[in-house]
Amino acid sequence: MTTEQTSDRRPPHVVILGGGFAGLTAARTLRRAAVRVTLVDRRNHHLFQPLLYQVATAALNPADIAYPIRSVLRGQPNVRTILARATRIDPVARRVDLFDGHLDFDYLIVATGATHSYFGNDDWEQWAPGLKTVEDAIEIRRRVLSAFEAAERQTDPAQLPATLTFVVVGAGPTGVELAGALSEIGRITVAKDFRSFDPRTLRVVLVEHAPRVLPVYSERLSASAKLQLERLGVEVRTGSRVTKIDQTGVWFGEEHLAARTVLWAAGVAASPLGKDLQVEVDRAGRVAVAPDLSVPGHEHIFVVGDLMRFEEDGAMVPGVAPTAIQSGRHAAKNILALLAGRPTRPFHYRDKGSLATIGRAAAVGQVGKLELSGFFAWWIWWMIHIAYLIGFRNRIVVMIGWAWQYFAFSRGARLITGRTWEPARDAERRA
Amino acid sequence: MTTEQTSDRRPPHVVILGGGFAGLTAARTLRRAAVRVTLVDRRNHHLFQPLLYQVATAALNPADIAYPIRSVLRGQPNVRTILARATRIDPVARRVDLFDGHLDFDYLIVATGATHSYFGNDDWEQWAPGLKTVEDAIEIRRRVLSAFEAAERQTDPAQLPATLTFVVVGAGPTGVELAGALSEIGRITVAKDFRSFDPRTLRVVLVEHAPRVLPVYSERLSASAKLQLERLGVEVRTGSRVTKIDQTGVWFGEEHLAARTVLWAAGVAASPLGKDLQVEVDRAGRVAVAPDLSVPGHEHIFVVGDLMRFEEDGAMVPGVAPTAIQSGRHAAKNILALLAGRPTRPFHYRDKGSLATIGRAAAVGQVGKLELSGFFAWWIWWMIHIAYLIGFRNRIVVMIGWAWQYFAFSRGARLITGRTWEPARDAERRA
Repeated sequence: MTTEQTSDRRPPHVVILGGGFAGLTAARTLRRAAVRVTLVDRRNHHLFQPLLYQVATAALNPADIAYPIRSVLRGQPNVRTILARATRIDPVARRVDLFDGHLDFDYLIVATGATHSYFGNDDWEQWAPGLKTVEDAIEIRRRVLSAFEAAERQTDPAQLPATLTFVVVGAGPTGVELAGALSEIGRITVAKDFRSFDPRTLRVVLVEHAPRVLPVYSERLSASAKLQLERLGVEVRTGSRVTKIDQTGVWFGEEHLAARTVLWAAGVAASPLGKDLQVEVDRAGRVAVAPDLSVPGHEHIFVVGDLMRFEEDGAMVPGVAPTAIQSGRHAAKNILALLAGRPTRPFHYRDKGSLATIGRAAAVGQVGKLELSGFFAWWIWWMIHIAYLIGFRNRIVVMIGWAWQYFAFSRGARLITGRTWEPARDAERRA
Repeated sequence: MTTEQTSDRRPPHVVILGGGFAGLTAARTLRRAAVRVTLVDRRNHHLFQPLLYQVATAALNPADIAYPIRSVLRGQPNVRTILARATRIDPVARRVDLFDGHLDFDYLIVATGATHSYFGNDDWEQWAPGLKTVEDAIEIRRRVLSAFEAAERQTDPAQLPATLTFVVVGAGPTGVELAGALSEIGRITVAKDFRSFDPRTLRVVLVEHAPRVLPVYSERLSASAKLQLERLGVEVRTGSRVTKIDQTGVWFGEEHLAARTVLWAAGVAASPLGKDLQVEVDRAGRVAVAPDLSVPGHEHIFVVGDLMRFEEDGAMVPGVAPTAIQSGRHAAKNILALLAGRPTRPFHYRDKGSLATIGRAAAVGQVGKLELSGFFAWWIWWMIHIAYLIGFRNRIVVMIGWAWQYFAFSRGARLITGRTWEPARDAERRA
């Protein structure tokens, strides 16, 4: 439906694809510029992905960490937000095709991010969902809570261990967070809710191909994270390669680990739009950008956030929120430079440190040469995430939710929606 | 999977079907009794249905008004909660078939409630969803928010009015609440969020077959409710019979009302389990119970809540939360009487009055002979609903959500999940 022509009389048209940290920061950076901005996202909400695992583990509501993009940009008159799916970029014609229409642009910022990758085994997804969207989180929550419900009704004691085994594949920050939270759910949250089994007997196995958990951290912090995970009751299994996942569990070559619930927290697959830009992409589909974040050969197109491949000092900048925010802002500033006839400037990533939370009062962090772990790291993690959360109301609600969870050892969003583990009428109707 | 035999050595087995107000109250009433209670629900959560319209209109999160049933009953050792779907009742063999197993009972309380009815036009449901479950509420929220998104991208001005027309069929409490909230969303919540149209131009039409809104209230309160609705910008159309609903809107005989969004808030269809009891059911499928709430001919089976048809002083007791709570408690007490060898007692409904909210500072209420309307009725409504909400945390969060909505004119849960109005990738994947 949306079909727009740029005309010489109107201000230049900047199209931003994606309303994540990168796209939203880019739009805000252009707030005083004499440009028309169109921000396109196929969701109506900005999602605070660092806290998505808390939705998956029933601690937060989806709306606590998701905020309507157009509300964030409400006060910025030069931005128009549209809910649409970009299907193709034509960098030469300067045009973006939408599922239902198209947009012509003078400048383009591509910030469509990345999702998880099954390394060519896409059929594993049905048995081991990943965590990128609100729907993913609700589906994981459904599976986790349903496993306990199934255990309550399990009449064959031989099958109980598999019903209560949760496997998390991938020990990056998301995998570590999920594993810690799963263990806490069984050992604390629902510990007294069941009659025919003891939820504290659950088994959480965190599987990692690399020789240690949180491989991007220092060896010392990895060791600390492993210790903290084990204290929370998580079995850590590093150096293990998953060869198959099916409805019975996970296979490591000939070895079988029986598990009803398997979650996927590995791999990176960049947005397919990167391939339209007619330049080099890496194995994950990320676009190798020029030093100023533009696409080589197309100085009016910029790629930022998780979709960008940017190396500095021989290392790739990590796919985290600070990178997205910094690169989004930088690309917008370079567009302002081009508009003013000034040269663009190269991007430099400022590493403000990194933190990974593990569970109640458990985390590790690295700020420059300083290494943190335990309660203090967890507390800093908490403060930073509150500060970043967009939307004042969300901040209060999240704080209350966390305080409640911490002091009352409860989780407030233990809802099974969608399909229940038996085919309920609604699920059938909607299927 | 669950297959249980009752034995003479174990305490009598009371099975309760349904974890709504009626079933939950019944289970709690039995807390000190020497019985084994099994509560069966096909959802894991008790749903506070009086506030469900607030989820549908993006003011509250699903988990704010839904609470895990087994957590509510955690401290009651004689209750076991199972997530299962009851498919059939055999009143003579005293047995409930589940989708995957069965339960034998000594006493049974059927509290499986009712849903909306399309009066034989079930194909209307796809164009006009009703509001009974969390999934329903999320679907309605998706449609309402998506209508504004579609309007923003509407390039044909002739189609804009239909895109911004919302029809609510049925002017009982739910229909009145939905209509008031829809008008408020357009005129206040998202009023400044869009660029290519003015959301305040939305049209909300409340359709009712009867000659007045809220037909169970007095004529004076109906008139007051109509006035309050019109002040909020709702068009009230009484004495109108809907003859057809399709993707273009609503038909009244030859007359067509073009509308993208139609919501259904009419009719009652009782749970199909009532028909298994081999006794008289009314047109809506409700079971005509004996004065003590038992099923005629089966003194060990009780029907309570919305599934029950109970007349007192020539009028049917209304299908509201107080009826469910009172009847659930009464049936449980009669089971205790039977166990003690005492006679059962007849049920008497205590009418504590009724309240219907319309919108910001707008409501009507009837307490005995006292009639209330406007801000005061709304304030009482608010206090009562907070007091009834199960779960301390929910109470706080709901209060904050409401205070926020009232003072900041905002709604905190404006999330479009599931299918976006264009077929997004995730929707395709899950379809």
